[in-house]
Amino acid sequence: MKQDATLKELAIACKAAAKIMAQLDTNVKNDLLLAMADRLAADADVIRRENGADVRRAEENGLSEAMIDRLVIDTVRVRKMADALRHIAALRDPVGEITQTWSRPNGIEVAYQRIPLGVIAMIYESRPDVTSDAAGLCLKAGNAVFLRGGSEAFASNRAIVKAFHASLQEHDIPTAAITLVPTIDRAAIAEMLQLTDEIDLVIPRGGEGLIRFVAENSRIPVIKHYKGVCHQYVDFNADIDMAIDLLIDGKCSRPGVCNALETLLVHKDIAPSFFAQAAPVLAAKNVEIRACPISIRYFERAVPATEDDYDAEFLSLTLAVKVVDSMDEAIEHISTYGSDHTEVIVTRDYAHARKFTRRVNSAVVLVNASSRFSDGGELGLGAEIGISTTRLHAYGPMGLESLTTKKFVVRGDGQTRHNMNW
Amino acid sequence: MKQDATLKELAIACKAAAKIMAQLDTNVKNDLLLAMADRLAADADVIRRENGADVRRAEENGLSEAMIDRLVIDTVRVRKMADALRHIAALRDPVGEITQTWSRPNGIEVAYQRIPLGVIAMIYESRPDVTSDAAGLCLKAGNAVFLRGGSEAFASNRAIVKAFHASLQEHDIPTAAITLVPTIDRAAIAEMLQLTDEIDLVIPRGGEGLIRFVAENSRIPVIKHYKGVCHQYVDFNADIDMAIDLLIDGKCSRPGVCNALETLLVHKDIAPSFFAQAAPVLAAKNVEIRACPISIRYFERAVPATEDDYDAEFLSLTLAVKVVDSMDEAIEHISTYGSDHTEVIVTRDYAHARKFTRRVNSAVVLVNASSRFSDGGELGLGAEIGISTTRLHAYGPMGLESLTTKKFVVRGDGQTRHNMNW
Repeated sequence: MKQDATLKELAIACKAAAKIMAQLDTNVKNDLLLAMADRLAADADVIRRENGADVRRAEENGLSEAMIDRLVIDTVRVRKMADALRHIAALRDPVGEITQTWSRPNGIEVAYQRIPLGVIAMIYESRPDVTSDAAGLCLKAGNAVFLRGGSEAFASNRAIVKAFHASLQEHDIPTAAITLVPTIDRAAIAEMLQLTDEIDLVIPRGGEGLIRFVAENSRIPVIKHYKGVCHQYVDFNADIDMAIDLLIDGKCSRPGVCNALETLLVHKDIAPSFFAQAAPVLAAKNVEIRACPISIRYFERAVPATEDDYDAEFLSLTLAVKVVDSMDEAIEHISTYGSDHTEVIVTRDYAHARKFTRRVNSAVVLVNASSRFSDGGELGLGAEIGISTTRLHAYGPMGLESLTTKKFVVRGDGQTRHNMNW
Repeated sequence: MKQDATLKELAIACKAAAKIMAQLDTNVKNDLLLAMADRLAADADVIRRENGADVRRAEENGLSEAMIDRLVIDTVRVRKMADALRHIAALRDPVGEITQTWSRPNGIEVAYQRIPLGVIAMIYESRPDVTSDAAGLCLKAGNAVFLRGGSEAFASNRAIVKAFHASLQEHDIPTAAITLVPTIDRAAIAEMLQLTDEIDLVIPRGGEGLIRFVAENSRIPVIKHYKGVCHQYVDFNADIDMAIDLLIDGKCSRPGVCNALETLLVHKDIAPSFFAQAAPVLAAKNVEIRACPISIRYFERAVPATEDDYDAEFLSLTLAVKVVDSMDEAIEHISTYGSDHTEVIVTRDYAHARKFTRRVNSAVVLVNASSRFSDGGELGLGAEIGISTTRLHAYGPMGLESLTTKKFVVRGDGQTRHNMNW
């Protein structure tokens, strides 16, 4: 990593490395990923020492305990990073896959074949394991990666990338295939986002502030989601035990993540019996309720819900609750307040299940299953590089395939569009 | 169409119409498209009168004959527009298609299902038939369309859209589903390109200047191609007759389009015999040659090729020619000078055919077939809304599917991510 190279120069080198990555056989990429995993384990002491320096600086700067917790790399985390790389090595290579093929009346055969995107820039905060996961996924899909992690994790990220560079060198691949922006200067982000000739895609991961900054300043395509305001709608004839299971899993199992539930919508016909059973469970789980005027009577302790509550991603044990007159009203509420992320219907009614999945066009729509399945791993994508709520290129959890595109390959025997006569 | 509404207000109405379009059954959309076709035919006189006014203004303003030719709507063109709408009605509806489905070990079933993108903005020049084609394709894929045609075709576009609005009203669909920007002010384009909350995708069609303006000023995702610098590589053992067929079809059948050939690369081993046959044919077809130092000797009249010639999209009967030592050199040339659009190899060699299609990652790569097949209709997409050389979302010719995205639909029986205990 040249400390004195400009960002543009680094990106040009990264683009050149992407051309080499795009041509590697699957075996070579898998060997590389396994070598990277081994190297992480071998360099664990160095990585933890550098991480220790980051953590001390973070403590001196008074970062919150939660942020420091995300920053710390202990022995278990090193092992998890290495295991994730081995898992990525075991995934099917999307590059080269022929997804569809057909022939034309003139005899030419047309195929769609997956190819890498090129250079993928990741812009993220605190967690140094993103460095490892993102590098692994981007490389497996035949791309080069341009990393800009959080300034508080700079020494950790540098140590991880240094370990990976040793593996790249062993495999005769330019180290620029994994480029870490060698500065903590925040202006570097704005500068990166102008490099349209070198970077093909930007994936920001972090708080809404970072993501908005990236989206508003980028001239490169950005795949992102701002927040997850996920709904569970309990239909008129839902299985109440099931609805409570899904509600507790969705709200309480990990409230700080984007696929956690934020708003509960309940059909008026089931409201009395549902709340009679659900309210004590929510109370026992210490869930704070922001209730509509109709539902508030069912709770011992609840705060009246405001307009803002229905827009909110609480990221805590807080739940907005609203009784609706019909499924149409529930769908309308989701359309108005939702974030296009994840919505659940709990129902026994076939027609309602069909109508809900057809009419709701959020990225993930679930019938009788927990919102927490809105995750690349849980949905069976093998891994997750991010979640998109913009409809271009990818929508919802993104796995390896989202890091590729498709070219047309046409095979013929000399076909021309016009009759030749020369 | 409210003349006094702001662009933002128009876009908000268009977005509301998109939500209605997204829910329409295929039958309704097809009926609408057929009605729009009939209405075009019925209103042909009005449309031609308005078009006549555009043409007179264009003549007064001294527009080129080629531009006026693209602008004119005669009886044949009205019929062609109507036929295109009927053809779109006959195409399979991509919306609702389940492209893949799988189940997870816990029993949930996961499906990818196609949904519309939302509001698609088209920004284009002169040709008023784009108004009709784009509206038809966007609506068939369940989207609303926000049209900004060339100022020189404003009266023509307004007459076409007015005809379509009558059909929309008959079908109780808001006329905002087809919104024409009601001003010829160029500042409207820059303003449109900021409407990130309302418009989901921008597709510019026209000259490189317009496309660069859109790409550089848009905060909305843009799908585009700047130019087509398409190559044909004649391999060491190519069938020479076939190579000449493909060359003449690629270069001469319609030199002004983006899938026409611009550069011919010839393997040194076949160069003498190939050029002996090809040079007279090219001369007879009045093709102007820009030749490398090696190939120039084979032509009676040729100009030495400059660096710029290899970068050029000539859009005329001009061809750059270069002899290469190897296929690797041809691939390297394409990688350096190409525009990621369309490349052809002519070969009898199995390994070379495989290597070329694997290594060249342009949007369309053809073996022994003409570059002119790089077209949505010719490749079997049914129609074409544009061509993309950016790798995000779509790459190459784009049909109806490119106007959709995919959501995840998950069906379960109450599955949760964690064991429930309440």
